[in-house]
Amino acid sequence: MRYPNSSKTFHKVISHANRGMVLEELINEANKYYLENDLALIYKKPTPIGIVNVKSDGTKKIITKAFFKEPSTLDYNGIYKGRYIEFDAKETKNKTSFPLANISKNQLSHIYAVNNHKGIVFLIISINQNFFLLDAKSIISFIENEKRKSIPLKYIETHGYKINQKGFIKINYLDELDKIIGG
Amino acid sequence: MRYPNSSKTFHKVISHANRGMVLEELINEANKYYLENDLALIYKKPTPIGIVNVKSDGTKKIITKAFFKEPSTLDYNGIYKGRYIEFDAKETKNKTSFPLANISKNQLSHIYAVNNHKGIVFLIISINQNFFLLDAKSIISFIENEKRKSIPLKYIETHGYKINQKGFIKINYLDELDKIIGG
Repeated sequence: MRYPNSSKTFHKVISHANRGMVLEELINEANKYYLENDLALIYKKPTPIGIVNVKSDGTKKIITKAFFKEPSTLDYNGIYKGRYIEFDAKETKNKTSFPLANISKNQLSHIYAVNNHKGIVFLIISINQNFFLLDAKSIISFIENEKRKSIPLKYIETHGYKINQKGFIKINYLDELDKIIGG
Repeated sequence: MRYPNSSKTFHKVISHANRGMVLEELINEANKYYLENDLALIYKKPTPIGIVNVKSDGTKKIITKAFFKEPSTLDYNGIYKGRYIEFDAKETKNKTSFPLANISKNQLSHIYAVNNHKGIVFLIISINQNFFLLDAKSIISFIENEKRKSIPLKYIETHGYKINQKGFIKINYLDELDKIIGG
C-alpha cells in the first residue's frame, strides 16, 4: 500500500506506535542468538490476558473474547551462568532523564523482591539513541537517596552500563551482565 | 444448582474436565503462600496465545480473535534461595506409571537445556492420588538408561520426592526442593 504525499506523517505515526515494539524486537533477536548459541536461556513472558470466551471449531479452540492484563512482573526472565535473570525493556523519548513513572508500582515491588532473593534484576533503558543496562541495586539506591521523579541520564551513564552492538546483535546485553555477575 | 439423580455422573464429568486445572490451582495456592511469606518468587507463566484481531472500544483494547500456542518451556518459573527454578505440573490417570508422552518434545529439550545451565528443573507429577517432585536429573537418567516409554511409579517413588501437605497448602513442594538444592 502506498501513501502518496503523506509518507512522512505515515512514517511518524508508525514509528511512534511501534516504539516499544522495536526495542522488544531487538531484545528478542539477542535472546534468540543467545539461545541458539547456548549462552543463556532468556524468554519474553507471554502477554498476560484474561480469556472471556472460547469457542471450538471442531479441531481447535479459538478465543473470541479476551482482554489484556497489567503485568505485575518484568517482561523477560531466564537463566544465565546458573543465575536467575529478570528484566524489562523501557523506552523514553526524554533525552536527559528516565521518568520513574515508566515503572509500575507492582513492577517496582517485584524488582525489590527479586533483588532480595538474590536474582539479577535490571532494566534495559533506551534513551537518547543509546541502550543502557541499569541494575536493580542502582535503581533502588537512586529511589532511596534522591527525591527526583526521574533518573538523570548522567546517573544512568555513571551507574549503568552502555550496551554495545556485537555483529548483527544490536543489544548485546550479556557482556554488560558479566560485569554485574562478576562484581 | 442441583442435579437430581445424576450427581455422580455430573461429578465425574467435572472432575475429568478440571483434572489439569485442579493440580494447577493447588500449585498456584502454594506459590501464593510462598510469595506472601517471602519464601520464593514463583509464577505461572501466562498461557501463550497468538493474537489475530484486536478492536478498541474507546477506552481499552479487546481481543476478538486469538488462538492457543503450544508452550515450548515449562509452565512455572522463578527464584528460590537465589536459584533459578522451573517446573511443570503433570497429571496421569495411569496408576502405575507416568507416560513420557505427557512431556512434549520441546519441553523435554528445554528440561535438558535448563539442567545444563545449572537451573533447578523438575516435574510435579500427580499420580495415584499422590504428588511427587521428580528432578530433571532423574528424568534424564531414566530416558538415557531405559527403553520404556513410561516411568514406573516405583522409579518415581525411589528417585523422586513425595510432596506432603503443610497446613492448608496441599502441595508444599519447597520442602522437597530443599532436598535437591541441599544435595
